[in-house]
Amino acid sequence: MSFQLGENTLKVTPKLFAENRTRLIDELRKKVSHSGVVVLEGGKERFRYNTDFDDLPFRQESYFFWAFGVHESDCYGIIDIDSGKSILLPPRLHPDFAIWSGKIEPESWFLEKYETDEVHFNDKDTIRDILHRLNAQQILLLRAENTDSGSILEPAEFEGKDEFNIDITTLYPILAELRVIKTDLELEVLRYAVQIACDAHRTVMRNIQPGYYEYQMESLFRHTSYFHGGCRYFGYTCIGASGCNAAILHYGNQNSPNSKKLYDGDICCFDMGPEYNCYTSDITCSFPCNGKFSEKQKIIYNLVYEANQTVFKAAKPGVRWTEMHILAERIILKGLKDAGILTGDVEEMLEKRVGAVFMPHGLGHFVGLEIHDVGGYLGDALPRSSLPGLKYLRTTRTLKERMVVAIEPGCYFNDTLLDKALADPELSKYFNNEALKEYRGIGGVRVEDNVVIWENGNENMSADLPRTIEEIEAFMGKKDDNNNF
Amino acid sequence: MSFQLGENTLKVTPKLFAENRTRLIDELRKKVSHSGVVVLEGGKERFRYNTDFDDLPFRQESYFFWAFGVHESDCYGIIDIDSGKSILLPPRLHPDFAIWSGKIEPESWFLEKYETDEVHFNDKDTIRDILHRLNAQQILLLRAENTDSGSILEPAEFEGKDEFNIDITTLYPILAELRVIKTDLELEVLRYAVQIACDAHRTVMRNIQPGYYEYQMESLFRHTSYFHGGCRYFGYTCIGASGCNAAILHYGNQNSPNSKKLYDGDICCFDMGPEYNCYTSDITCSFPCNGKFSEKQKIIYNLVYEANQTVFKAAKPGVRWTEMHILAERIILKGLKDAGILTGDVEEMLEKRVGAVFMPHGLGHFVGLEIHDVGGYLGDALPRSSLPGLKYLRTTRTLKERMVVAIEPGCYFNDTLLDKALADPELSKYFNNEALKEYRGIGGVRVEDNVVIWENGNENMSADLPRTIEEIEAFMGKKDDNNNF
Repeated sequence: MSFQLGENTLKVTPKLFAENRTRLIDELRKKVSHSGVVVLEGGKERFRYNTDFDDLPFRQESYFFWAFGVHESDCYGIIDIDSGKSILLPPRLHPDFAIWSGKIEPESWFLEKYETDEVHFNDKDTIRDILHRLNAQQILLLRAENTDSGSILEPAEFEGKDEFNIDITTLYPILAELRVIKTDLELEVLRYAVQIACDAHRTVMRNIQPGYYEYQMESLFRHTSYFHGGCRYFGYTCIGASGCNAAILHYGNQNSPNSKKLYDGDICCFDMGPEYNCYTSDITCSFPCNGKFSEKQKIIYNLVYEANQTVFKAAKPGVRWTEMHILAERIILKGLKDAGILTGDVEEMLEKRVGAVFMPHGLGHFVGLEIHDVGGYLGDALPRSSLPGLKYLRTTRTLKERMVVAIEPGCYFNDTLLDKALADPELSKYFNNEALKEYRGIGGVRVEDNVVIWENGNENMSADLPRTIEEIEAFMGKKDDNNNF
Repeated sequence: MSFQLGENTLKVTPKLFAENRTRLIDELRKKVSHSGVVVLEGGKERFRYNTDFDDLPFRQESYFFWAFGVHESDCYGIIDIDSGKSILLPPRLHPDFAIWSGKIEPESWFLEKYETDEVHFNDKDTIRDILHRLNAQQILLLRAENTDSGSILEPAEFEGKDEFNIDITTLYPILAELRVIKTDLELEVLRYAVQIACDAHRTVMRNIQPGYYEYQMESLFRHTSYFHGGCRYFGYTCIGASGCNAAILHYGNQNSPNSKKLYDGDICCFDMGPEYNCYTSDITCSFPCNGKFSEKQKIIYNLVYEANQTVFKAAKPGVRWTEMHILAERIILKGLKDAGILTGDVEEMLEKRVGAVFMPHGLGHFVGLEIHDVGGYLGDALPRSSLPGLKYLRTTRTLKERMVVAIEPGCYFNDTLLDKALADPELSKYFNNEALKEYRGIGGVRVEDNVVIWENGNENMSADLPRTIEEIEAFMGKKDDNNNF
């Protein structure tokens, strides 16, 4: 039974997840001796603090979703490496579920919906009994570390766990690595999520004007994504930054809830991405809220866009992402030098990390079931740098076919960073402070695409956006009629 | 500095929270010996599983918000009962915060924004030092139990806690009870949130038609609330139930994500409530998606609406909420008897809990900083019943002035409940199965208002909705022009 939300939205087949499980089994067979069994625990329903409700309903944990595609909470999944069989274990629901949350479906319903080999409601001893039946010699559990935050996804807990030989180290790198390389079926969903993001960004660009508030544009973006695209969740908090706020990378949070009014002359840096069936997009559009770039905005926009395009072309299989970051920095530094803001040798500035004053974040990251998708420091990754800018790289790996990356160079005029640089003689000598003053308060520009790496030329999934200054101004010149949102 | 999101949204003054603290101090002085000090811990940022992001940003914990009105995460608050002074302790932020999340504001900024007596950034020993300076003999911490789910909000943790005499039982009932009784300033915010809810429900009613999906109407509701009302959060997951789904009380969750198409003849039972500055609304509108009630829908709607109106008039200070539940059941049972669905003595049916077959939930609950607001089983509450329907009452207290309650009688045709009742000879004798069959699949109706209890007649904050059949049909007959949402 495919997942779909409305007839105009994408159908996602359970074959996507069956294929993922097959890939996992194939890899595990190479590395694990026989009679190994994987046990995964899905996400549990959580509420605000100690209440019994939340704004949005349960969203599945991404590793579990990758393997089973299951939307319901409190499930387990078992994969038997020897037989290749997969078993889904939904919770046995309290009879009152039928009053509050809907019909209690039988095991056969889950079997048809998710196409695992078996489905059993999970009673106290169900997992233990199944593992004994499978004669499991080794139980592979997932203990996954977030390589950006260091936070840990703890291994599955179940009754009788101590009767088995437990391994919590083997599964994580294999499963995470499989998530890095996207299948055709996964790419289809990602393309859809990115398409919805592009549609919603275009709707915002067509309807924006000075006088609105940033949060109203967030609202329009979310509404377009959900109403027309069936995207109920978003991969991250919408960043609806305008004017000087565009220099704050994760603007839009509780400290700065997209609350500024849009003024004539403001640049917008809107970083928003809807999620469809748990696969997310991550797209940034930068444009002037009045539809016409100022001369200074043009200069900054063009150097960022050039960095974006250059990386897009250079980011081939075998190329290290760190090199792409440096490449983007070089273009941005050169552009700032041409604009008279910086002075001196660009390679020397690169060395001194002047680039990180203007682009303090990493060039990009993997995208998939999470906006900052897993595996950035697995494989052939170099250890995380401690240098400005580079330390925030979410991956240092060389690229491979079927990786999906966000390419998101940016150039920002962040007062805190600029003041710090100007106070440092090692850095201040590269700055033309008079010229810099002219750009202070302009905010920043980021141009972010979601790209599939291919041997014969990359695929820009977000190509369907106005991106050059000419395209943006022409596009924004045509206002939507009858906008009564 | 008032909270406001856009110039057309409500300004909320920090005086609201200063008044709350004064009320708390007054109560504590009556009950606690001198030199007692309250320490509250605000909510901490949380992310999806082990990631470093989430869909919506941090939302403050409600007890902390009630006392301090602070939107930022990871704060503490101290209230000195003797002096009446309040101290806010925001976290000392990492310098990189300025890159990612915005300017790092000084203590004076928090002082101006939240109007506490003192503000200190919270370093390792700050709380300990302050408590020693205040010569605190007793530290009152909040250990709050959710009386519906039983889940616990754990007391504040801080360095040096074991140097003090800690009390975790005194504060909870006092603080929760103060939250039950709303001040004028709180009512102003609640009225605004309810007004936005009404506006958004009306927008949905004006634009709905067969062919749309339930989730599209959720999207329109959320967009209207946020775009026009500045409501970024919602008090609970939007319930956009239509047709037979209207019999599922918490429809709209992950198992049933508002995914049905609206068909001509479907009833809608839309239970949605935006939150403004953490104060929530909780409003249900029931109406036919094609704008014209069928004869059977009229019968069910009218008996529910009569229950709603009768309770509204009868719910005076001193009246026990349990009695209001029974009153609503009586009207619903009588209506179902008049419709020929039930037969026999209404009082006997009440006794046998036949009412809970049609209204399995409680009649309503307190509303405030949470949709199911606190304190329902404090004060003069009777112990929770174990009987059908009554066991789900979220309060059994007698009403007082300034309580805000959701009055939400409903009548549903839930197959699971009906089949169970028909299989029980004690209950089945009251059913006319032939007549009942005519109503099966019709779904259900709920009419939910948010009401302030006053001595001289209650205030229906959601009075601004078309509610009679005539009003609804007339209102829905006038379609909005140019709806290109």
